[in-house]
Amino acid sequence: MRLSRFFLPILRDDPKEAEIVSHRLMLRAGMIRQSSAGIYTWLPLGYRVLSKIEQIVREEQDRAGALELLMPTIQSADLWRESGRYDDYGKEMLRIQDRHERDMLYGPTNEELITAIFRDGVKSYKDLPRILYHIQWKFRDEIRPRFGVMRGREFLMKDSYSFDLTQDDARKSYNRMFVSYLRTFARMGLKSIPMAAETGPIGGDLSHEFIILAETGESEVYCHKDYLAMEPPGDDLDYEGDLAPLVRDWTGRYAATSEMHDAARFEADVAEADRVTARGIEVGHIFFFGTKYSEAMGAKVQGPEGDLITVEMGSYGIGVSRLVGAIIEASHDEAGIIWPQSVAPFDIGLINLKAGDADTDLACEDFYTRLQNAGFDVLYDDRDDRAGAKFAAMDLIGLPWQLIVGPKSLKAGEVELKERATGTRHSLTFDSALTMLSDAIAGRTKEGA
Amino acid sequence: MRLSRFFLPILRDDPKEAEIVSHRLMLRAGMIRQSSAGIYTWLPLGYRVLSKIEQIVREEQDRAGALELLMPTIQSADLWRESGRYDDYGKEMLRIQDRHERDMLYGPTNEELITAIFRDGVKSYKDLPRILYHIQWKFRDEIRPRFGVMRGREFLMKDSYSFDLTQDDARKSYNRMFVSYLRTFARMGLKSIPMAAETGPIGGDLSHEFIILAETGESEVYCHKDYLAMEPPGDDLDYEGDLAPLVRDWTGRYAATSEMHDAARFEADVAEADRVTARGIEVGHIFFFGTKYSEAMGAKVQGPEGDLITVEMGSYGIGVSRLVGAIIEASHDEAGIIWPQSVAPFDIGLINLKAGDADTDLACEDFYTRLQNAGFDVLYDDRDDRAGAKFAAMDLIGLPWQLIVGPKSLKAGEVELKERATGTRHSLTFDSALTMLSDAIAGRTKEGA
Repeated sequence: MRLSRFFLPILRDDPKEAEIVSHRLMLRAGMIRQSSAGIYTWLPLGYRVLSKIEQIVREEQDRAGALELLMPTIQSADLWRESGRYDDYGKEMLRIQDRHERDMLYGPTNEELITAIFRDGVKSYKDLPRILYHIQWKFRDEIRPRFGVMRGREFLMKDSYSFDLTQDDARKSYNRMFVSYLRTFARMGLKSIPMAAETGPIGGDLSHEFIILAETGESEVYCHKDYLAMEPPGDDLDYEGDLAPLVRDWTGRYAATSEMHDAARFEADVAEADRVTARGIEVGHIFFFGTKYSEAMGAKVQGPEGDLITVEMGSYGIGVSRLVGAIIEASHDEAGIIWPQSVAPFDIGLINLKAGDADTDLACEDFYTRLQNAGFDVLYDDRDDRAGAKFAAMDLIGLPWQLIVGPKSLKAGEVELKERATGTRHSLTFDSALTMLSDAIAGRTKEGA
Repeated sequence: MRLSRFFLPILRDDPKEAEIVSHRLMLRAGMIRQSSAGIYTWLPLGYRVLSKIEQIVREEQDRAGALELLMPTIQSADLWRESGRYDDYGKEMLRIQDRHERDMLYGPTNEELITAIFRDGVKSYKDLPRILYHIQWKFRDEIRPRFGVMRGREFLMKDSYSFDLTQDDARKSYNRMFVSYLRTFARMGLKSIPMAAETGPIGGDLSHEFIILAETGESEVYCHKDYLAMEPPGDDLDYEGDLAPLVRDWTGRYAATSEMHDAARFEADVAEADRVTARGIEVGHIFFFGTKYSEAMGAKVQGPEGDLITVEMGSYGIGVSRLVGAIIEASHDEAGIIWPQSVAPFDIGLINLKAGDADTDLACEDFYTRLQNAGFDVLYDDRDDRAGAKFAAMDLIGLPWQLIVGPKSLKAGEVELKERATGTRHSLTFDSALTMLSDAIAGRTKEGA
């Protein structure tokens, strides 16, 4: 993509309304624009990141055996009356009347709708287990939306729902999602720690939040320091095998959000040298809630003996749009964003230091073509602008690699390759740069981190 | 995908509420379920088709130089007051009040919002031309939603918006979208015909509808029969070149929907033998409307002489969810859907005629693995069910190819390969079947039709 043809409205100054770093950087880097309180347009740069995160989430759900479908945003109030939540849910639910004065709502979550779909489509225990998921926009009418996409009103979520015949089976589905979450966040360059959580309005008696650590995180968390060194399951993970030992491994040590924190237990269970107190951001939340919805809504299947059995359910959320902010909170510096390779909007920023100079233009065009032919996504800054402004913009938007081309280094037969995360610069031939990039970005395939 | 683990709630009987064939077949084939009037959940089979159509639309927009972003579904009423359309728009607009009693709405279209985004982000003629697009759910509160996804209330659309300095430039953007639409629909196996159209509530003075022909189409259309034989632009199309001759070619002969039809002109301009009267379905609509929104909302850029110039705009829609129904209307038979390869939910249905028989199971597992390794998406019917029921289900869901495996043919070292569209059956070795499939589906890549 040539920057001269892209849509990247970068802001020079810090926007006043941004209280946290991800909000500030997303506005400055031209990733989002607010259209109403807590409601954003994703501009091309932001949309590219959002899509990459969405795709990683999708791939890991598919790998775990979940089936993708898509539920609508607007739901009938009658469904929510079946579960009893229509009246319970407060003002965060956006309530709507259609032209026939029927009560509708913009879905804040989907337990009711998926239970109805399951109830109408599945009749026999032979069709269990099932995990169904979708990735869809939701709305929660927060009284005071803030922190950009971290707490917006309209936000993108992946939510999965599991259906099982017994509690034991349901625990297996829970474990599948638990393990897939560790992989999902790891692929985005994040270290996530599962923490026992309250179930809140979703209900149920088993629940974990997945928390990533970031200095600027929204809340305090407490955990054993072993978690910081644990490796998430690799590509050899077998979802058909017994996942319980893996889940035990990841839940065996102390880890708690401030809501669930028990200082006495923390001190009793964890040696002082092993205690970590840090700031965290919630990026996923999983629940087992048994028959709460299936009972109320009559979601039953015929069991092996011919009797009707109420299915055991769980639900599993990932905040897809929130993750864009969370990754920035966890990965930035004074100059701007530092994207992990797997979610970067482009792999490489190609900087032409003297646009308009025939030799430099010619070399840049050649490099641009060759980088694209090698399979990289390249943002080529071909604009007529000062070098300093180009460096600042490229640092701000945080592409993992910068290839800097100017007349002086070209005369020496070289280009400059800069790694955004470390700031390391290499002067080398273009061919050597290409080799270095291919080695570094090779892992950026479907499977890579 | 093993059918025993998929979610495919097929209906044996015709649903009473379905008035048209696509609605009936989508319900029967377990592609969609209605959750409220005109609002549907896309079940896994339907969602796969929807995603493939969406991806073709996206690729052709990108190829034409349009930039993808994503605008939210919920918009502020104030924006629509700027253009004057808030009061003009009737009851089809879903109006909402949030908890602070601010007037909001569920976007039925996005001219206002994109104009605001452009206005805030672009200041100079140097940043023109631009075409911005998104693929997002919209809502139109139809008084009587019907015909399934062909006229739903919540529906998925691609809409693009062009911004140019002059009317001449705007015409070039219009031509880009015009030509890209011909390619887009052709890649889905559809023959589309552009027809001059009224501009309606969008406004403007230049507009074309893209109509596909289907016996069960919603409205009568009239055109020169030459259109039926014209080839859409191929992969060698150069968007940087002059597209005007191509557009002239596709608009030079008579073509009109019933609203625009002029029987006298039709008879005067077209020889009787060349007159085609047929049923058509609208799948795309493009508009040039000049400064209607940019003037009202103050979207101006600094021109080459330093003066402020109001930008010239156009908008370009494709009904993405509507296309799923439209393709079925154009491609089905008594037994069910016949998917064009490029949008089929799976490439091949593998039918095990005797699930439970050790040899047949073993052979099917082997074929299933080898088909997947060859890069095909396979739906493997491994259920214990009657052959007749399996054939009927596979015909209903309309995968382009069926590979039928039973103990009798296996003994002869053969399988049966059936082409859904023609009903042609071949008895041949699995290796020959694999070769035949590879030849037939080779075109099903990014570029293929």
